[in-house]
Amino acid sequence: MTTLRIAEIFGPTIQGEGALIGEPTVFVRAGGCDYRCSWCDSMHAVDSAYRHDWAVMTPEDVMAEVRRLSGGKPLTVSISGGNPAIQDFAPVIAIGKEEGYRFACETQGSVSQPWFADLDTLVLSPKPPSSGEKTDWHKFTRCLHQAKGCGQAVMKIVVFDDTDYAWAKAAAERHPELPLYLQPGNPEVDPELPVDLNQATDRLLWLIEKVTGDGWFTPRVLPQLHVLVWGNKRGV
Amino acid sequence: MTTLRIAEIFGPTIQGEGALIGEPTVFVRAGGCDYRCSWCDSMHAVDSAYRHDWAVMTPEDVMAEVRRLSGGKPLTVSISGGNPAIQDFAPVIAIGKEEGYRFACETQGSVSQPWFADLDTLVLSPKPPSSGEKTDWHKFTRCLHQAKGCGQAVMKIVVFDDTDYAWAKAAAERHPELPLYLQPGNPEVDPELPVDLNQATDRLLWLIEKVTGDGWFTPRVLPQLHVLVWGNKRGV
Ligand code: SF4
Ligand code: SF4
Repeated sequence: MTTLRIAEIFGPTIQGEGALIGEPTVFVRAGGCDYRCSWCDSMHAVDSAYRHDWAVMTPEDVMAEVRRLSGGKPLTVSISGGNPAIQDFAPVIAIGKEEGYRFACETQGSVSQPWFADLDTLVLSPKPPSSGEKTDWHKFTRCLHQAKGCGQAVMKIVVFDDTDYAWAKAAAERHPELPLYLQPGNPEVDPELPVDLNQATDRLLWLIEKVTGDGWFTPRVLPQLHVLVWGNKRGV
Repeated sequence: MTTLRIAEIFGPTIQGEGALIGEPTVFVRAGGCDYRCSWCDSMHAVDSAYRHDWAVMTPEDVMAEVRRLSGGKPLTVSISGGNPAIQDFAPVIAIGKEEGYRFACETQGSVSQPWFADLDTLVLSPKPPSSGEKTDWHKFTRCLHQAKGCGQAVMKIVVFDDTDYAWAKAAAERHPELPLYLQPGNPEVDPELPVDLNQATDRLLWLIEKVTGDGWFTPRVLPQLHVLVWGNKRGV
């Protein structure tokens, strides 16, 4: 019997970023990640030091919790992490789709899964240089192949600085077929500390001016709404 | 020769709300409106007291300015107002599309135009009770008929209070075929006064909790990003 390591399940709230921004969503955050981004805002779902906080759940357990939170009304379920692609979410998606739930998944694109094809939305978010991680574009492309038949595949890139920005442009040239979403990086990831709203909007402004000043009109530029609204509080 | 009353043309910046949120855009704000919403944030494009500030431009003048602002690179042009549907934007759209520009238009749905069919995106934003205006749903439906053949038609509703919220739900039931975007109302429309960011995020939070608490998972809930980033400053 498949079991899954789950760091948290919460919602419904709205999706705070990217292609589905504003969409009422229940989030299933998988535990475990093959990356260690320097600015990761989800270390509680990455570092095995937090492993004792993760639940071991069957796919039916996961969907039972999603159902409870949404009052049994189908909505979008976002599978995130950590890197959810290191586990097998096929059974969760199969049960949920049967009941009318829609599924989105966000992953960096380092591990591919056959169940990508069952998703409504696959968000591939390769990590820019500031993360300290390196993208294997061969593996990234394999993710895209696995996703054939899914509703939509999009690319989302977090931009902290000029180096990240140049890297994002190169990534876009590599995959012009993917709708692109850029978001300013958030260095304030400590859940114990409040986020400075003015600094957060300044970072968005910087990225907007970068893109428009550059005449690069392809990407959409979006903030992390949940950071603007809730700061770094978890489970909202 | 057609001429147009234009209150302002500005950009490129990003679209701050609704279906195209985050999209690099040049805005063409038409002068004149058949409504007088109590909380209108664009009175400089509505009230004929500001008429002497509006430019009288030919369609080629309008596109020349759009071209200048975008450095000749095609992007999305958003035609707003006022109510742009009381004027003839067909020639502007024809010239722009020829050069690869895409066109969105936002209107309350009180006046229909054949050129709606030429748009990439038609945003119909019927005004809720708090506006003091009343929607003529027959005219609204005529707008939708005129829009047949356009890229996409969506509905956006501003929600200030519980009455508006109930009204938005009824509007959604009337037009389930239209993807729906809700945004919290902004009562702080004086361009001379700063916007209180915490209050703006509180209003978003209120609407998110309303929708999710209600199990109403169809609409997307989005803030006005430009208000969060720039306050009420014009021309950004
Ligand atoms: S890939 Fe995502 S979850 Fe994993 S370390 Fe990087 S930011 Fe954190
Ligand atoms: S329809 Fe729009 S532009 Fe016209 S008065 Fe109302 S809010 Fe202002």
